[in-house]
Order: sequence, then structure tokens, then C-alpha cells
Amino acid sequence: MDIGALLTSAGINIAICVVLLSLYSILRKQPSNVSVYFTRRFVSEPVKRSDPFCLERFVPSASWIMRAWQATDEEILAVGGVDAVVFMRIVVFSIRIFSIAAMICIFLVLPVNYYGQEMQHKRIHAESLEVFTIGNVKEGSKWLWTHCLALYVISCSACVLLYFEYKSITKMRLAHITGSPPNPSHFTVLVRGIPWSPDHSYSDAVEKFFSTYYPASYVSHQMVYRAGTVEKLMKDAEKMYRMLKTVEPHGKQGSMPCCLCGGTTHSFKMLSHEAESVKGKTSVDELQSTQREKERPAAFVFFRTRYAAVVAAQVLQSPNPMLWVTQLAPEPHDVYWSNLSIPYKQVWLRKIATLLGAIVFMFMFLVPVTFVQGLTQLDQLSHTFPFLKGILKEKLMNQLVTGYLPSVILILFLYAVPPTMMLFSTMEGNVSRSERKRSTCIKVLYFTIWNVFFVNVLSGSIIRQLSVFSSVRDIPTQLAKAVPTQATFFTTYVLSSGWASLSCEVIQLFALLCNAFRKFILRSKEEPSNCTLTFPHHTEIPRLLLFGLLGFTCSVMAPLILPFVLVYFFLAFLVYRNQILHVYVSKYECGGQFWPIVHNTTIFSLVLTQIIALGVFGIKQSPVASGFTIPLIFFTLLFNEYCRQRFSPVFKSSPAQVSIRNLSI
Amino acid sequence: MDIGALLTSAGINIAICVVLLSLYSILRKQPSNVSVYFTRRFVSEPVKRSDPFCLERFVPSASWIMRAWQATDEEILAVGGVDAVVFMRIVVFSIRIFSIAAMICIFLVLPVNYYGQEMQHKRIHAESLEVFTIGNVKEGSKWLWTHCLALYVISCSACVLLYFEYKSITKMRLAHITGSPPNPSHFTVLVRGIPWSPDHSYSDAVEKFFSTYYPASYVSHQMVYRAGTVEKLMKDAEKMYRMLKTVEPHGKQGSMPCCLCGGTTHSFKMLSHEAESVKGKTSVDELQSTQREKERPAAFVFFRTRYAAVVAAQVLQSPNPMLWVTQLAPEPHDVYWSNLSIPYKQVWLRKIATLLGAIVFMFMFLVPVTFVQGLTQLDQLSHTFPFLKGILKEKLMNQLVTGYLPSVILILFLYAVPPTMMLFSTMEGNVSRSERKRSTCIKVLYFTIWNVFFVNVLSGSIIRQLSVFSSVRDIPTQLAKAVPTQATFFTTYVLSSGWASLSCEVIQLFALLCNAFRKFILRSKEEPSNCTLTFPHHTEIPRLLLFGLLGFTCSVMAPLILPFVLVYFFLAFLVYRNQILHVYVSKYECGGQFWPIVHNTTIFSLVLTQIIALGVFGIKQSPVASGFTIPLIFFTLLFNEYCRQRFSPVFKSSPAQVSIRNLSI
Repeated sequence: MDIGALLTSAGINIAICVVLLSLYSILRKQPSNVSVYFTRRFVSEPVKRSDPFCLERFVPSASWIMRAWQATDEEILAVGGVDAVVFMRIVVFSIRIFSIAAMICIFLVLPVNYYGQEMQHKRIHAESLEVFTIGNVKEGSKWLWTHCLALYVISCSACVLLYFEYKSITKMRLAHITGSPPNPSHFTVLVRGIPWSPDHSYSDAVEKFFSTYYPASYVSHQMVYRAGTVEKLMKDAEKMYRMLKTVEPHGKQGSMPCCLCGGTTHSFKMLSHEAESVKGKTSVDELQSTQREKERPAAFVFFRTRYAAVVAAQVLQSPNPMLWVTQLAPEPHDVYWSNLSIPYKQVWLRKIATLLGAIVFMFMFLVPVTFVQGLTQLDQLSHTFPFLKGILKEKLMNQLVTGYLPSVILILFLYAVPPTMMLFSTMEGNVSRSERKRSTCIKVLYFTIWNVFFVNVLSGSIIRQLSVFSSVRDIPTQLAKAVPTQATFFTTYVLSSGWASLSCEVIQLFALLCNAFRKFILRSKEEPSNCTLTFPHHTEIPRLLLFGLLGFTCSVMAPLILPFVLVYFFLAFLVYRNQILHVYVSKYECGGQFWPIVHNTTIFSLVLTQIIALGVFGIKQSPVASGFTIPLIFFTLLFNEYCRQRFSPVFKSSPAQVSIRNLSI
Repeated sequence: MDIGALLTSAGINIAICVVLLSLYSILRKQPSNVSVYFTRRFVSEPVKRSDPFCLERFVPSASWIMRAWQATDEEILAVGGVDAVVFMRIVVFSIRIFSIAAMICIFLVLPVNYYGQEMQHKRIHAESLEVFTIGNVKEGSKWLWTHCLALYVISCSACVLLYFEYKSITKMRLAHITGSPPNPSHFTVLVRGIPWSPDHSYSDAVEKFFSTYYPASYVSHQMVYRAGTVEKLMKDAEKMYRMLKTVEPHGKQGSMPCCLCGGTTHSFKMLSHEAESVKGKTSVDELQSTQREKERPAAFVFFRTRYAAVVAAQVLQSPNPMLWVTQLAPEPHDVYWSNLSIPYKQVWLRKIATLLGAIVFMFMFLVPVTFVQGLTQLDQLSHTFPFLKGILKEKLMNQLVTGYLPSVILILFLYAVPPTMMLFSTMEGNVSRSERKRSTCIKVLYFTIWNVFFVNVLSGSIIRQLSVFSSVRDIPTQLAKAVPTQATFFTTYVLSSGWASLSCEVIQLFALLCNAFRKFILRSKEEPSNCTLTFPHHTEIPRLLLFGLLGFTCSVMAPLILPFVLVYFFLAFLVYRNQILHVYVSKYECGGQFWPIVHNTTIFSLVLTQIIALGVFGIKQSPVASGFTIPLIFFTLLFNEYCRQRFSPVFKSSPAQVSIRNLSI
């Protein structure tokens, strides 16, 4: 691939982005799309304003960009909670570090690469991209210290930035714990693994246990009940009722006859009330005997003070660690009710099973990725399918296939991943939605890094022989050989997948189509009230981190990727701010618990970059540069360990000092 | 090596053992050795009984064996505490599992190995030991299912036994927590990382913090003070005084003039009192200003109830996890005072540094081990040193060098290891002796397993090419090739190192020589009162576990090792019981916290055995046996995970239920 092809690819992508963003700026002005693009405002005041028809509505404008740019961090915090701010911090951190990296790499490393070998340079746009990578530097070159210096600058500034980010996010988390308005969940502990005894019910056991061991602070408790078949039917009915209600509004009769629920709306409503009571809102008196049978070995226990709840959640309760397992209760919106009744004894087994399932899924995914990889190596492809030879000889076609098609295919396949991983995390037995999301986030992250980065890097020639798994010591060398040559693919990946995904994110294609379908096919006048979305951390954080990883690993090796990564993050900054401000509604939050994942992944990216650099310096026979890289790896790991000691315990359990100081009643 | 050589080696070792044990049975009857062999009784009533001189004193007897055999577990518990019982459980577990292994391997596997190949069998005592290993089985043999079956039986029974041991030891630990007599340390929490402020002293900070956050349960606290130069001098003087006191007893003047402390004994005593006061026994009033300067950021905090102490120790105190770090205080005898003043901020760094130090030490040790390994390969040796050829041609010499010398050299080198590791663990910053011992135990264990097992297995031909580190996938195959051939060495190692170490343990050579030196050279009449030993868990547990590992890994491959391992454990049963009953004094204990180490190591041994078997089955081209081994590995790991979930939390922190039920005042 040469500069020309890269520019073609960039051109296509810029065009697509501009078109989509303009389209967005028009679509958002249409009153019919308020429920799609202003969900947040729409939920709080679902009044339909019919603006007068005017030309302005059909002219693209950049006002939303200004709005997103001007929003302050406080505004984001107020609107999206700590998690939204943490998400924006990832973007800001990436912009900062890649600005530094771009400065040093483009002005120092790129010239060294370009003039690395005594060769006849072609005209710039016909120059192969390889000329700009470290592969062009002579073996034993004395200029490799520039790469080593760049590596040092990037690593050190990344560590410094990471430290301050971690510090400020820890502070934000603590402020969130102390500052958030008093909430029943702060005083509540979720108990699982209540031991069964034939003499008394689970409820009696909880009562007895906590009034014995926490006599001063125990207030009461609420058992979790099993949802039987009838409850499930009622739930389905309730769901259907709600769905129908959106089509046929409660007040008006007519416009579209509904034979299923004509006149029975009231009975549906009663049922739905009853269904809610199953989740613990009515008194336990009625249906005493059956309810006892329906009790599950899990309960919410309420304490007098917040501190007592924190203590009860952190202390090991029973000599059998599988019984009386306590944790702070999630917020009411955050509870994932159907997992509460999973016996705690199963949880560890479920975790292992889903882990294995996720790993198998990861490796199964090799098939499409290997196919995609094949597309970038056109010679082989036209060798295998001779009929393609004619098509591939055309220049534009060639550029399109090498520069664009692989990424598109990969993206389409990747869309199936988050729902699968979410399913795994549900089966894992997480009791809260935020926990499930975090678990999904980690799974998707591993998946993305493995399948986009490693498989692409290693599949070139190695995975076919399956010898990569047998050599540990050669990994740096193998990576060092593979990464610079794969830099082209990664650059196009950032271009296509990165930029396009942001355009898709802002335009909310799926919600838009649904809305259009409802408006123009079902001809519903009433706006739907329950289709709010929470921010999809589990897909967006891995995506940001993947581009961070690509940026880091290619920075010193193939600096040409950096401008594209930077543009991606700038665009991400605007798009995600806009989305947080207008689209997503945060029903629950986990108080910044995503940051440790981000921190660890960034450290991983840094160390991987350093290991690859070590391999490259080895290949280029520069013992000095290699010698300087080894302590850098060591100090990066040491820094990570320090942060783990200094900050991460606060993200696992809330400190007593904080919970006592502000919120003991 | 053939059966004859093995029997020679066994003969030598049996002879040595019998001689040493007989010598022991004589020596222990001498009244002058009471302080060596009956330290426990001697400490409680240091009266010198002069038995009448009779012939019986010089006749070897087996009465101590009977005594050790008849002692009950309750007696051991009363005398040595939980740790001693846990230690004996390791021996009992090993005896049980290796009895089962010996039964199945000798009656089922051994004949299959012996008749594995159609060959002319020599007379039994000239038969090479290789004939009895799995190496003698034909490739693709249909009899390999016996090995697979034996592996299944051994793994399953080991898991079942491990489960019940873990269960009973957990119960014992809980009984120890609730049942031990009330002790100030139960109500005490050790706080480290007290933040420094210019306004008030550390003591004020502690006072303020705990009376704010634990107003109901906080009683008082005691700061830790820095030992200055003067204190250190005083300490040395105190030590010297004690040493001199043993030579020149307090009551009698004369017999040996001591110009250093004639008449100053009293002042020494006074000083020693003052030295103790530094560790916190006098009131803080005197020397107020200097003491404030000497305060270290660590303190013991006393609580009203045991439960409050448990809570304060388990809950995260401060938003900065490096400050106000709490843990349950160790028992007074257990506290390692000089490490208390290490700033908590350093601890994580010290841990990493000592870990790296220990790893470097482990690899430095390769040098002597490689030399030892060379001795078992005589051809190479006589090739390198031609002058040895003459000596080595003699048969006895040959047998001695191959069968005995390597082990002896290895043992001598290994004696230097525990003190080094203890030094590392001291530098690590452990605040209690038991914690330090546990940390040393783990280090010595890794060291032993690496240097005795892996290096010997892998050094044969592989380590020289250093290619072993580069191949992950081939490890099972490499191990499978190496272990059966190294079985001979391991058998002789069990014979020489194992049996001899037990004889040395029972005879307490060092203490005996010291005693003789004091009695006959210094001519001291007074018995020393402060030379009691605590049980050296950190050397003995790794030794037992190493022999367990050798037994497991060789069991299916080379079953001939099993009788020797069994004899070792039987002997260990008698010797260690005797030592616990008579010699060692337990000043402090850690309540069975060694067991998780033992459990994990045994699981590691099992999985290693299974991996090696997998490799062997692969080499022998038996897909069925390999196929059955893989689920076995998986289920063993699953079992381990279950035990980790079910039992290990109790070994990390004490459960609230237990600490409330019995000992809240």
C-alpha cells in the first residue's frame, strides 16, 4: 500500500464522515426525531412541540459541535454521573498522550525512518508506507536512539498522566460516595448463601442471624422470592400490555382497533401491580405458606447506619465462606433481579464455565478474522481465486479491497460480540447490571485486543503453522517483525472502523429506523416512553482502548498512524459528549469502577509497546537501545504495582472513614 | 544404575540410619543431654537430676519409638499447638496417599512395565532400573490403560483425602480461634501508615482517629518507638550480659574471673529493664519531648471487644489505602519488633525487591546443581577429567559416586538456603515471626522444587542449550522424556537425603555439639535457659512436600520409588512426633496457616504428574490414555478452585460469627 492508497482511503472515510455528520445535524432538527436524539430531555418532558416548518431545518449546521465543546465537566457529571466523566477522561487522556506522541514521533522519528536507508526516494504520493516505518532503518544504525528516546518520552508522560487521572478519579469516586443523596441502598446489604434448615424459613434465619450478630444496627430485611411460572406469564403480559399501550394510548379509544385488550386494560394494570408485589413491595402476610416455599436463599438486609452496612459487607461472616456472603446492595435500578435467586454455591462454577465459554468463543472467531487477513494479501487471494485476477488488476478496486473491505467485514463480525459477551456475563450470576456491564466490558476488551490486534499481527505467516504458541522467548522478535508490516492495516482500521463507528454512534441508526418504523408504518402518534438507553460502556470502552493500543504499539514503529488516531479521539470527544448530554440516560452507575480496567489496559499497551521495541532493537542490532528499554519495562511495571497499592483498594470496597464521616444518621 | 547398586545405596543408608538412631537412643539417656533432647521439659523445670550410673544407659533401646507412636493427637495439640498438628497431618496424609499409590502401582503398574517389552530379562539384581519404569513399555501398547487407571485412582484419592484434611484443619483453626484463652492480642489491632502532620504527634493522631471513628469500642493505644543508637547499644549489652550470665551464674562468684562485668551485673540489669521499657512498658510521661521524636508511624490499638478488633482489622479505613493500614496484632511473642518501624509505604517495594532477590538466588544456585547432575552421568565426567577413569572403574566406587555422592553434595548446598531465605523474609518487612516463617517457607519451597526437581529433570541435556525456556507446548513431552530417566536419581535422593535428614533431625547434631562444647570446654555447670528452639516449619514443610512431589511424579512412571518414599514418611512420623513432644517449644503459632501452602503444593504436584503422564502417553502413542488424562487435569484444577472458595478465606481473616460468639467481653 502506498501513500496514494492511504489518502484514497482517508478521502473516502472523511467523505463518509462529513456526509453522516451533516445528515445528523439535519435529522436532529426534525421534531419527529426528538425521541431518538434528545432522549434525555424527552424522558423528563415528553411533550411534543411542533416547530414551524422552515428551511433552516434542512441546512446542516455545526451548532451541536459547539454545544458539545462548551459543556463543562460539571455539566457532564450532573447529567451522566461519575461513569460518564470517567469515560470522557479516557478520551481526554488519549488526546493528551497521543498529542505528545505525535509531536515527538512525527518530528523526530519519522524523518529518521524516512532517511534510514540510502535509497532513491520516489515522489511522495507513490512512496510505499513501509518507507515510513522503522523497517526502513538500517541494521546497526546509530539513529535508533531517537526511537528509544521517543519510547521513554511516551512511557514517562503516559505514567505521569495516568497517575494524575487515577488520583482525580479516586477523588471523584470518594466524592460520589459521600456526596450522593442518601439512598436506601447505602444502608442495605445483599446477603446470599443463607443456609437452609428444615426447622425455620430463610426469613427466620436472616432475622435470627442479624439480630444476634448485629443487634445494635440491624433494622429489618426483605427476602428475595422465586418467580414461578405464573409470575413469568404475568411479567410477559405486563410487557405486552406496555407495548400495546404505547401503540394504543390509555386515554383515547379508537384510531386502530385492538381486539386483544379492548376493555381489559384495567385488569392488565392490576396484574402488573401484583407482579411488582412479587418483587417485594406488599406485606408478607398474604399467601404465607406458599411464599415460604418461594423464598430464595438471598435477602436484602437494612441497617441503621451506612457504616454498619459497610462493615457488614466487608467482614467475613461465617466460618463457611460459602454461607452468609455479604456485599453492599446495588442501587434499586441496578439490581439484576433474576440473578438474585441463583444459589451462591453455583457462582464460582458459573464464572469458570463462562470464562471457558468466552475463551472458546474468542478462538472460534479466528475463522472470519483469518479470512479478513487474507484480503490484505492480494497476491495469495488472486492465487486461490483466479477469477478475481481481472477485477483486482484495476487500481481503484485494488485499493478499495486492500484498504477498506477487510475492515468493514471485521466490523460487521464484531457487532455480534457484545451481545454474546453480555449473555455470558448474565449467566455468570452477577447480581447488578453495572457489575454485569463491567464483566462484559472486560470480556469484550480481551476479545477485541486478541482478535483485532494479536490475530492480525500474528496471522500473517505464523498462525498457519501454529508454531507461535510454542515459542515464548521469540515473542518479542515475532511481534517486532510483524507489527511494522501490519501498521498499514491498523492505519486503515483506525480510518474506517474508528471514524465510521463514531458517525454511526452519533446518528443512532437503529433507533432512527425503529422510530421511523413506528411513525410511518405503525402510524403511532404517541411517543414511546420506555425506550431509553444507558451508555454502552461495554462496547465503547474496549473500542477506545483498542485504538489506544494501536496508537501506542505503532507510535514508535510506524508514526504515520498517529494523526489518524488523534483525529479519531478528537471526534470521539465531540461525539460522546454530545451523546452523553442528549441521548443516554444513566439509570444506575458504578462510581468509576471502569477506571482500573482502563488503567491496567493502558499499562498493558505500554509494556507491549516496549516489548515490541525491544524486539525491534534486537533485530536492528542496537544493544544500547535494547539495554535502555529493559529498565523502562521494569519501571512501568513497578509504577503499575504502586498504583495498584495506592488506588485500587478504594475501587473494591468503600473506606470506613468516608462512610462514617458523612452519612451515618 | 541397576538393582544391585540401588540395594547397595539402600544398605548404606539403612546402616547409617540404624547407627544414628541407636546413637540417639543412647545419647538421650545421658543426663548431660537433657537440655538437648528434652528441651521442653527442661524449660519448665530446669532441675538437674543426676541419675545413678548404670549399664542400661549405654544400651540402645526403642522406647522413644513406642512413646512417639502412642502419643495421641490431643497430646500433640496440647504440646505443640495447631501448627504441630497441621505438620503431622502432612505426614499422615502422605502416608495414606502413598500407601494407596504403592498398592496400585506395585501390583498393577510395575508388572506391566517389567513385561512391557519382549526382551531377555537378566537376573533380578543385575536388572537395570530402567526396566521398571514406563520407558520399558512398548509404543502403542494396549496396557497403558493401567497407568491411566493408576493415575485416576491416585488423583481421586488424593483429592478426597485433601478435602477432608482441609475441612478438619479449618475446624481446628476455628476451634483454636474461639477456644484459646483470652489474650490481649485478640483485642488489639496493629495500625501502620499513620499519616504525619506537623501539628500533632503520631500518638495524638491515633487517639483522634480511633476515638472519632470507633468511639464505642476504642480503649487506648500504644505507640511503637524507634530504637536509637543508645537503645541498640543497650540491647547488645543486655545480650552480652545474658550470655555472660550463663557462663558465670548470678549467685556464685568465682570459678572463672570475668573482668568485664565484675560487680556491674546490677547496672546491666537496670539497663536491660530500661531497654524493655522502650518497647512500651513504662508510661509515656517521662522524656516526653524526645519520645515524641522517637515515635514511629505504627501503633497497637486496643479495643473493648474482640469483634471490634476483627472489624477494625478487616475494614478499609482510609481513602488512601497506604494510610491507616490495620491488621490483627500478632501475639506478643510473635511480634517482630524491629520491623514495626518500617514505613508501610516501603513494604510493597521491599516485597518486590526481595522477590527479585530470591529469584536471582534461585538461578544462581544452578551452578552447584549442574555440577551435581554431572556426577550421575559418569561417562561425561570421566571424559572431562581423565584422571578419574581409574577410580571410577572400580565397581563399588562407581556405585558410590553415582548413587550417593550427588545427593550429599546437594544436601550440603541446600543447608545454606533457609537462612538466606529467612534473611530475605526479614527484609520484606513482615511484622510477625510466624508471618516471616510462612513467607520463608514459601520461598524455600519454590527454591527446593525448582532446584531439586526441575533443574535435575531438565538439566540432563536441555538446560545447556537453554532451549527449554523457549518451548511451552513441548514441556509435557520434555518432562515425559526426562522424568523416567531421572527417577533413579530421585530414588537415591529419597534414600540418602530423606532418610539421613531424619536421622540428623533426631540427633540434633548442632545442639549436641554446642552442649558438649559448653560442658567440656567452657566447663559451665549451669544449664542455659534461653536456647529453646521453635519448630523449623520453614525447612521441614518444604522437605516433606518435595518428597511428596517426587513420590507423585514418579509414582506412575517409576513405581520403584514408592516403597522408599513410604519408609521415609513412616520414619518422619515417628521422628517428628518425638521432636514435637520433647524438643521444640512453641512460643507462637499461626493457627494452621501453613495448610493452604501444603494444599496448593499437593495440587501442583498432582497436576504436574498428570501433565507428565499426558506427555508420556503422547510419546507412547496412546490417544485413549491421553484423552482420559485431560479431563483429569481439568477436574483436579476445578477441585482446587472449589477448596479455594470453600476454605481459604477462613485462613486469611477470622469470621465475625466466631469472634462474636465466644469472646466478646
